[in-house]
Amino acid sequence: MAENIAKKASFASSYLKTLDNDQRSNALVKIHDALLANKQRILDGNAIDMKNAIDSNLAASLIKRLDLSRGDTFDSMLQGILQVKDLEDPVGKCTLARKLDEQLNLYRVTAPIGVLLIIFESRPEVIANITSLAIKSGNAAILKGGKESYQTFKILSDIINETLASETSIPEGAIQLIESREEVGDLLQQDKYIDLVIPRGSNLLVRHIKANTKIPVLGHADGICSIYVDKDVNIEKAIKIIIESKTHYAAACNAVEQLLLHTDIVNDVESFGKIIRALFDVKVKLHVTSNIKSHIQEASNGLVFDASGESFDKEYGSFDLSVKEVSSCEEAIKHINLHSSKHTDCIITENKDTAEKFLKGVDSAGVYWNCSTRFADGFRYGFGTEVGISTNKIHARGPVGLEGLMSYQYRLIGDGHLVGDYIGGGGEKPYIHQDLDCNVTF
Amino acid sequence: MAENIAKKASFASSYLKTLDNDQRSNALVKIHDALLANKQRILDGNAIDMKNAIDSNLAASLIKRLDLSRGDTFDSMLQGILQVKDLEDPVGKCTLARKLDEQLNLYRVTAPIGVLLIIFESRPEVIANITSLAIKSGNAAILKGGKESYQTFKILSDIINETLASETSIPEGAIQLIESREEVGDLLQQDKYIDLVIPRGSNLLVRHIKANTKIPVLGHADGICSIYVDKDVNIEKAIKIIIESKTHYAAACNAVEQLLLHTDIVNDVESFGKIIRALFDVKVKLHVTSNIKSHIQEASNGLVFDASGESFDKEYGSFDLSVKEVSSCEEAIKHINLHSSKHTDCIITENKDTAEKFLKGVDSAGVYWNCSTRFADGFRYGFGTEVGISTNKIHARGPVGLEGLMSYQYRLIGDGHLVGDYIGGGGEKPYIHQDLDCNVTF
Repeated sequence: MAENIAKKASFASSYLKTLDNDQRSNALVKIHDALLANKQRILDGNAIDMKNAIDSNLAASLIKRLDLSRGDTFDSMLQGILQVKDLEDPVGKCTLARKLDEQLNLYRVTAPIGVLLIIFESRPEVIANITSLAIKSGNAAILKGGKESYQTFKILSDIINETLASETSIPEGAIQLIESREEVGDLLQQDKYIDLVIPRGSNLLVRHIKANTKIPVLGHADGICSIYVDKDVNIEKAIKIIIESKTHYAAACNAVEQLLLHTDIVNDVESFGKIIRALFDVKVKLHVTSNIKSHIQEASNGLVFDASGESFDKEYGSFDLSVKEVSSCEEAIKHINLHSSKHTDCIITENKDTAEKFLKGVDSAGVYWNCSTRFADGFRYGFGTEVGISTNKIHARGPVGLEGLMSYQYRLIGDGHLVGDYIGGGGEKPYIHQDLDCNVTF
Repeated sequence: MAENIAKKASFASSYLKTLDNDQRSNALVKIHDALLANKQRILDGNAIDMKNAIDSNLAASLIKRLDLSRGDTFDSMLQGILQVKDLEDPVGKCTLARKLDEQLNLYRVTAPIGVLLIIFESRPEVIANITSLAIKSGNAAILKGGKESYQTFKILSDIINETLASETSIPEGAIQLIESREEVGDLLQQDKYIDLVIPRGSNLLVRHIKANTKIPVLGHADGICSIYVDKDVNIEKAIKIIIESKTHYAAACNAVEQLLLHTDIVNDVESFGKIIRALFDVKVKLHVTSNIKSHIQEASNGLVFDASGESFDKEYGSFDLSVKEVSSCEEAIKHINLHSSKHTDCIITENKDTAEKFLKGVDSAGVYWNCSTRFADGFRYGFGTEVGISTNKIHARGPVGLEGLMSYQYRLIGDGHLVGDYIGGGGEKPYIHQDLDCNVTF
């Protein structure tokens, strides 16, 4: 069953990748129109999911994410489809052009990756979002939602499938919305046909997926972000950044979890006191080393805890923050490279040389200087929309937009050219290897 | 033990990535000079490996690849180090620059991937080659050779380690040459510290590695390349290309394994006969469908075999070729996308529209038109040197040069900027999202 689904997607992807931008973009308009026309039907289905969720006593945060009728969620979802439609066509862009010899030209051309498997929990609007990104990028996609959004998923799935089949040139099987009763485990074994898995959900979901597939996974399990406060610091600026990075949306992956303070700051009663008081004021719980603890002169009001062995290797996702002292920027870099999840890490300093050292030495997808870690986000980066945030070291890193769903192919165009005529192949002719203008579209 | 090695490499990589191009390039000069000065000592060690290989009755092809004294192998190895030194610095290149707001600028900057694990069989010159590429790209590397090159490896390893330690600023642990007695299995489990595995060796080696690690693997297990001969073809051109692609170096991954002939060609007695005779002339063994067999009028001289179920899913690596008929370019594309290993596939046609269809529809790293599949090679593409050829769908595809060893990081530089001030974060300010000139080097 899973094999059939994956095989079907793989076949469809070969055809989907040959469609032009107008055909792909037009399909997005049709989906937009169909979802708009069926708004009430979708919201009715969503209401059933909401009721079931409340009856099953799901966490309030999950229920909130499930709710399509909340605020402008539905309209934003529709708007998002049109925004993706309007993005520049990512397919067929020439990124390298080289003359190997007369009439033997090499081109590197962007191409879809192939087949994506997207697994998500809650947030039914992800369906529209990911479907749009997949079609726009020419990738086939298999979407698998969680059981809590089953009714919404079913209705969205029916509408999208019907629309694609009857009103667009998107091939059958290119977008498959797999109902939640199917087993995800079998899909994760289809590495012959599926090229990339994109999980959208809890750390637990991502970790489970990473542990159970040979298919590359794009995303992040943990967002363990750090802020290092250097000695050459504007303390008011530092406090603003620390407070927002921790409290603006504590459950987000780009919230800060670790605060590293330079020795000079720890020993400066005034600066240290300001930081600690600011954190106490907004009820941040501090998990501190014994050294840091010894410097806290303010009344802790139950907000100070002893750091444990795990305090510097965890994502709290709450108003908790681990704090330790470091004696230099180098020590901060070393600590971060060992303990961070390579998501986003920030230095606060007025010293350009120290900042450069940090930005060069820290090995994370995002390296920040004097700004909130909360900026790590595709929309804020100007990518329009994002597939997720990757902490991988290869392919796409950080917030991933349409570009992260692209691969490339080398096109070599000759006229009967043989390797044997050239140096290195047994012949005498040298290669020309002259770079050409890349302003070609395929 | 393996964990210590990997951890050490990971620590070293954080420092290595901060060295400038001069420091990295200078290290390559020192390695070059040291290997040159120790040429005799290295060749003496290599002679022991050669003797052991002959005594153990290793295959002649393996023995040949082991031999550093053969022809200009040693000098080419040395030359290769200097060539890598002279390549453009791949580190710290800006590939995207964007103003998010006044004094809040985003840069995407190329950065080393981190820690590479290179596992190779035979070919001791790979050590110098990969060491150069790793240092030039700012990546730490763990090199693990096969037992057949143990003596050569040991001496090269000693010289490189001593040189790096005494004459360069490359940190200890950045390049670790692991002697063949250590277990590779444990290294493959170090996904916490190792970012990419690059196997250089047999299909068996690559398959074994892919099956036994969670670390991304860059390379290819199989090279199952196809040539499709279209109906609108210049038959002489087709024959030249087919013969070279099959026979120029049959053991290479970019040799052709499958020949797809358009129905019109199969039915054209003259064209078909020319192709078959040309293949017979150079003693290519044809594995044909019953349909193709029925059209062969030439004396087969034992060179014709019935294609089996596996004939279109295997890499022969020899003078064998599977042949079948397809009724259209679409059918050829479908066959290739299902059966090729996504390495390199070629169409031979004089019809531009058909060629475009093929180049767009075939989902392989290399899509060729009217030229030999043997061009799929980093040197021929003008990359200077290559790490290997990747059939992956993400990150690097096709021949992989220095660029394939790079990742990137996002640098965000602000002055106390907070997300909460902007639209989408609770504030009113819009993002500027204005692209800036990328001519910055970091």
